[in-house]
Amino acid sequence: MSVATVSKVLNGREDVAPATRARVEASLDRHQYQRRNRRPSTGQRRIDLVFHEFDTGWALEILRGAEAVTAAAGIGLAVSQLDGAHRPPSRWMDALLADRPLGVLLVLCHLTDSQQQHLRRQGIPFVVVDTDSATSASVPTVGSNNFNGGLLAARHLLELGHRRIAVISGPPDMLCSRARAAGFHSAHEEAGVTVDRELVCYGSFSAHAGHAHGLRLLSRPDRPTAIFAGSDIQAMGVLRAARKCGLRVPEDLSVIGYDNLPVSAWTDPALTTINQPLGDMAGIATQMLLDMAKGNELATSRIDLVTELIVRESTAPPAHPR
Amino acid sequence: MSVATVSKVLNGREDVAPATRARVEASLDRHQYQRRNRRPSTGQRRIDLVFHEFDTGWALEILRGAEAVTAAAGIGLAVSQLDGAHRPPSRWMDALLADRPLGVLLVLCHLTDSQQQHLRRQGIPFVVVDTDSATSASVPTVGSNNFNGGLLAARHLLELGHRRIAVISGPPDMLCSRARAAGFHSAHEEAGVTVDRELVCYGSFSAHAGHAHGLRLLSRPDRPTAIFAGSDIQAMGVLRAARKCGLRVPEDLSVIGYDNLPVSAWTDPALTTINQPLGDMAGIATQMLLDMAKGNELATSRIDLVTELIVRESTAPPAHPR
Repeated sequence: MSVATVSKVLNGREDVAPATRARVEASLDRHQYQRRNRRPSTGQRRIDLVFHEFDTGWALEILRGAEAVTAAAGIGLAVSQLDGAHRPPSRWMDALLADRPLGVLLVLCHLTDSQQQHLRRQGIPFVVVDTDSATSASVPTVGSNNFNGGLLAARHLLELGHRRIAVISGPPDMLCSRARAAGFHSAHEEAGVTVDRELVCYGSFSAHAGHAHGLRLLSRPDRPTAIFAGSDIQAMGVLRAARKCGLRVPEDLSVIGYDNLPVSAWTDPALTTINQPLGDMAGIATQMLLDMAKGNELATSRIDLVTELIVRESTAPPAHPR
Repeated sequence: MSVATVSKVLNGREDVAPATRARVEASLDRHQYQRRNRRPSTGQRRIDLVFHEFDTGWALEILRGAEAVTAAAGIGLAVSQLDGAHRPPSRWMDALLADRPLGVLLVLCHLTDSQQQHLRRQGIPFVVVDTDSATSASVPTVGSNNFNGGLLAARHLLELGHRRIAVISGPPDMLCSRARAAGFHSAHEEAGVTVDRELVCYGSFSAHAGHAHGLRLLSRPDRPTAIFAGSDIQAMGVLRAARKCGLRVPEDLSVIGYDNLPVSAWTDPALTTINQPLGDMAGIATQMLLDMAKGNELATSRIDLVTELIVRESTAPPAHPR
């Protein structure tokens, strides 16, 4: 193995044959190689915040939480997004290794095992802000309790007397969507109520998805009396669908959102929702990253913050309990 | 004058007596001093995006527009905010001079003359994204035509037959608020309609401000039949106030927002609004900055993008034209 080849692998370059890379990496692992931190004293006092995308409101809450911590620490915050991809492309890694930030905060996106190894070797710590709990235990992650969020939303509706409750969760390939749906099912089991599988659907977190699913659900002859949406923005689409169907919220239909974004307090009616403490999640993740950049051991690598029910105006007992 | 003192002034340090600083700066100006660009080849390929604050939705549109341009150029984007201040504090300048970005993009915030001089001497270009047109002609600025926005909103309502129209503009110390109000007045003059000065008010761009002003305006015995709000979020507060007063929108009250944020299409009713092309403004400003960082002359230093009326569901002829 040439020094040049080892150097290429260490620097995360892509122009190395996969078999060669694997051999070099196995050797580095055997010798427990960890690059010394060669960070210059100025100019790199910054962490990289990587979003899978900038979606409405949600990303801003994360940004706000992270920036509060970096600003207090006198550290810069570089922001980028992956156009909706959940894996950073290889050119992203090249730019990162050239730039050498103090650490990397990944929001709803994940590194391949090989990318993780590169960063570890370079001594660049990373933390994932993730609502889906799917990240391996070896990656420091801050999330929130999605199962509990689904449970709280369904319990609230069941306690109000609803028996036909629909759920529009997020994309089915995101574990957070499935965790919320699982919590939704658990609440029904507790209450001895059977879930109609036709009322369980998955879609994007957008208003458009809420509107389309809402129209479909509400035009059924056996329409649900309540809908639990996957996000506040998706719930705004459900509110629009209810209006198109001539249904009043909450008199004819109860609606629950998710996230508790600021806008959820100002919809008509104001949304009952599940608070996901996005700002706190980002702030804690940023602090973990700064601790790791100082070389401190983390007390725990996986933190889930609690989700809470926020009752506003969009939920009420059903007009005709079935 | 010692070399150390000149160096302190050049580096933007604060521990120089004001009189000394002024003398050094006058001397530098006489000699038309401009520091050579000593930027290292890696690690500083980044622009700094500075918000006065992260408010709902608005900041995200700016961020999206700027990031699209920096990502395409393979350049990083560092983001910070000033907790609502419109002038960066001196510690901000210290950090900036230590960090030496390619350029600085300022959103709704302004540099003092002295801060501008520091950056020019250091060869760090800056561009302001500003809706208020208040920036001096020597500072490259991208904004939008607020006067026209106010004009279009008021013309639309006057053409629908409204004669008692209220305006809730932004903070009175922001020229954008006054420019919109001026456009509002101009449209009334065109139509030969007198503006009731009691219906012209200023406030923050928040939903709370829209709610408070809305309640006050709508509880008047001679209440307006239409309200032109300062932002889409403020308009959501007005919608809430209308509901509290038992008024239907648009049957009993027409409401126009401002900005055309994505959420404005999903309120109930969907908001008629003025499109302010925030993403394009940020994208153009970022491109100007990258051009300046390459040493290119700008063709023009002040660009105002056009504002447009977007008609949705929240405006209609008044029920009883007065």
